[in-house]
Amino acid sequence: MGRRHETISFLSDYGATDEFVGVVRSVIRSIAPHVTVIDICHEIPPHDVRAGSLTLVRAVQYLAPGVVLAVVDPSVGTARRALAVEVGEDGEAVFVGPDNGLLAAAVSMVGGAGRAVELTNDTYHLPSPGPTFAGRDIFGPAAAHLCNGVDLAELGASVDPLSLRPGLVPLSRREGGRLETEVLWVDRFGNIQLNVGPEDVESFGDRVTVRWSGNVRSAARVKAYEDVAPGQLGLLIDSYGLMALVLDQTSAADELGVKAGDALTLEAPSG
Amino acid sequence: MGRRHETISFLSDYGATDEFVGVVRSVIRSIAPHVTVIDICHEIPPHDVRAGSLTLVRAVQYLAPGVVLAVVDPSVGTARRALAVEVGEDGEAVFVGPDNGLLAAAVSMVGGAGRAVELTNDTYHLPSPGPTFAGRDIFGPAAAHLCNGVDLAELGASVDPLSLRPGLVPLSRREGGRLETEVLWVDRFGNIQLNVGPEDVESFGDRVTVRWSGNVRSAARVKAYEDVAPGQLGLLIDSYGLMALVLDQTSAADELGVKAGDALTLEAPSG
Amino acid sequence: MGRRHETISFLSDYGATDEFVGVVRSVIRSIAPHVTVIDICHEIPPHDVRAGSLTLVRAVQYLAPGVVLAVVDPSVGTARRALAVEVGEDGEAVFVGPDNGLLAAAVSMVGGAGRAVELTNDTYHLPSPGPTFAGRDIFGPAAAHLCNGVDLAELGASVDPLSLRPGLVPLSRREGGRLETEVLWVDRFGNIQLNVGPEDVESFGDRVTVRWSGNVRSAARVKAYEDVAPGQLGLLIDSYGLMALVLDQTSAADELGVKAGDALTLEAPSG
Repeated sequence: MGRRHETISFLSDYGATDEFVGVVRSVIRSIAPHVTVIDICHEIPPHDVRAGSLTLVRAVQYLAPGVVLAVVDPSVGTARRALAVEVGEDGEAVFVGPDNGLLAAAVSMVGGAGRAVELTNDTYHLPSPGPTFAGRDIFGPAAAHLCNGVDLAELGASVDPLSLRPGLVPLSRREGGRLETEVLWVDRFGNIQLNVGPEDVESFGDRVTVRWSGNVRSAARVKAYEDVAPGQLGLLIDSYGLMALVLDQTSAADELGVKAGDALTLEAPSG
Repeated sequence: MGRRHETISFLSDYGATDEFVGVVRSVIRSIAPHVTVIDICHEIPPHDVRAGSLTLVRAVQYLAPGVVLAVVDPSVGTARRALAVEVGEDGEAVFVGPDNGLLAAAVSMVGGAGRAVELTNDTYHLPSPGPTFAGRDIFGPAAAHLCNGVDLAELGASVDPLSLRPGLVPLSRREGGRLETEVLWVDRFGNIQLNVGPEDVESFGDRVTVRWSGNVRSAARVKAYEDVAPGQLGLLIDSYGLMALVLDQTSAADELGVKAGDALTLEAPSG
Repeated sequence: MGRRHETISFLSDYGATDEFVGVVRSVIRSIAPHVTVIDICHEIPPHDVRAGSLTLVRAVQYLAPGVVLAVVDPSVGTARRALAVEVGEDGEAVFVGPDNGLLAAAVSMVGGAGRAVELTNDTYHLPSPGPTFAGRDIFGPAAAHLCNGVDLAELGASVDPLSLRPGLVPLSRREGGRLETEVLWVDRFGNIQLNVGPEDVESFGDRVTVRWSGNVRSAARVKAYEDVAPGQLGLLIDSYGLMALVLDQTSAADELGVKAGDALTLEAPSG
C-alpha cells in the first residue's frame, strides 16, 4: 500500500456551465469518501494548456499536501499518455493529468518528478460508453484511488520521468537596452503579469517605457497600488513575485488592450 | 428513524452571481454539519426545467449515494408540489425538488420512484419572510433533515408515485430514410449531443448527411476527436453513450449555429 | 486558547476565472485541515464594497456558526486596516476582512461588534513576495488560525469597535406622498430589490405608481409570482422581507432597464 491522502486539488478547463466538475467530484466521492476536493480553477479557457500550466504554477506552492488533479486535455482520446507523477520525498504529493506539458512547470517548482506511471491499468478506470471524458473515467478515479493508499505502481506501467513532455515557459529576452517580455496572465482585476522579475527591471530606475503593438506609454515603478497616480500606469512586484503593469482600481489590460500571450517591450526612458 | 446520509448532490439554476447557493449550503451545514455537499451544476439557464432535467440525467449514474437536491423552479410559490422521492431498495437515494418534471427522468434511470411525500410538514421548514426562496426554506432543510435520519414520512403527506409529473424526454423519429433528431445539449467545448444512440445511426454507414435550418453538411463517423480531419464535421459516440456532432478542438455548435432544442435531420448521403 | 470553529463562510470579489479562491482555500486547508469552507459568493463585482456588504447582510442570518471571511478590498496594500471582529456572546462568530465598511452592516445584524483586533501580528501571516494578495497572506490565514483556537487577541493590536468604519446603508426617504427608493440588488432572475419594507408601502394600497429616469409604470401589489398577470409589473415581499419589483418568469430589471444603485420613486396612483 502507498501513503493515504486527504486532499485533492483540482484544476481543469471544464467551466461551470456543465456538470463536468460535479461528476468528477461525485466519482471521487464514491471511491474515496474521506477526501476533501479543493477546486483551484475550472475556468481555464477550453484546451488552453499554456494558461492551465501557468495557473498551476502560480497556485502550486500554496496547495495542501495530497494529490493534484489537473485536466486541460485537447488531445483526449488520442495517443497522449495519461500520467501520475510523484514529487517530493516519500511521495508526499502526486500529480495526475495528461502528458501534454500541463503539469511540468508545477512539478519542477515543487521538487521535480520522482516515480511516474502511465494510467494503463483499467482496473482503476470507470467503464466508459465513449472515449471522451477522461477526467471522469481515468484521471478522477486514479486520484481517488491514490488517496485510498493504492500505490502508484498499481496504476499502470512505469514511465521514465525524463520522457515527460516539458512545459512551455516563455522566457523574456534582453536585446540591447530593451527587454522583450510576454504577458503571462491578465487577472480578474485587469492586472498584467509579465514574465520578468524585479531583478530584470532594476537597471531601468524609477520609470520604464512600455511599447506594444505600435503604442508607447510610460510606467512608474511603485510599491503598492495606492502609489499609482490616477490614470498613471504603474509597474509593481505582484503577489507572485513577478512584475505587473497596473492601474489603481481600474483594468490596465482593458486600457492597454492587451491579453495573455501578447508581447511588450520595456526600456529605459529616452533622454 | 430513517437511514442517515453523508452526501447531498446539488443542482440548480441559481447561478454564481448571487449568494443563493451559498445560503442553501449554509442552511444545510447548520442543520446537518456532517454532510458533504457536492455541486453538480448551478448554471442551468434560469427556469429551464428541460436543461436541468437533462443535466441531472447525464450526471445521475455517477452521483455518490445519498440525497439529490435539485431546484429549477419557475413556479415557486404556486400550487406546484414540493417533493421528496425515494428510489432504490431501502431508500438508499432520495430526490428532493419541485414536482415539475425536473426529477422524473433521473429517478427513472436509477430505478424509479418508491415512497414519495409532499413537503407539507413545516416543522422542517425555515420560517420565511416571503414566499420565494424554496431552496433555502423548504428543499434545502428537507435534504438536510433526511441526512440526519428523519424518515421520509415525517416530512409530509404521502403522494402516489404515479401522480408525479413526468419528464419531457424528446424522442427522435424515423421518417422514411431520415432520422429527425433534436439537440439535447451543447457542452462548453461546443460538442452537439443528439437524442440518438449508436444503433439509430448504424444503417447510415461511414458518412451521414446533416440538415438543419436550410443548411446541409456531411459528417464522418469517427471513433475519437483525433480522427476528425481539420474542418471536417465528425459524428461520434460521446462520453454519455449518445451520438454527438463535433469538430476537432473547435466548437461545432458555433460553426453550425445550433443550440439546445434545435432540430436536425440525419440521412444517408444521396447517390 | 480561544474557541475552535468548524466552518468558514467565504465571500469575495475574486471571481472564478483565476485561482484566487482556490489558493485561499488551500491555505486554509493547510493551516486548519478540519475546517469546511462554504463559498457564499465570489462574483461580487470587482472592488464593489457596497454590493459585497449588501450580499453579506442578506446571507448573514443563514450562515453556519464559525468564522466569516469577507474580502472586497480596493485599497489592499494601503493604510486601511485588516480586521478580525467578534460578535455574539463568547465569540461564537468572528468576522475577518478589511476595515472599509464591508463587514459593518452584517456585524450589526447579528449582534454588533465585541472585541476587535487589527491583524498586525505577522507570525500568523504568510510571507508574501508582493503586497497585493491579502486574502491569501493575511485574511485567510487569520480565519484558519481562529478556527484552530488561536485567541483573537493573539492576532494583533486591540481596536476600539467604535472606530470601525460604518457601512453604507442606503435609506429610503418619504417626500410628501412619494417614497424615494434605491435599487439594492438585481438578482439572477432580474428581480429588483428596493430598500423599503412592507410597512413603507402599506399606505399605497393595491396599486403603486413607479417612476424612474423619466419613465412611469404601474405595479400591482401581489403575494406571489403567479399572481402577476402576464406583462404586468408586480410589487411583492421578497424572500428577504424587502419589497421587490418583479415580472412572472421574466427579468423585471431588463424590462425596466434598471440596475443596483438606481433611484426609483413609488407613489399612490393619481386620481
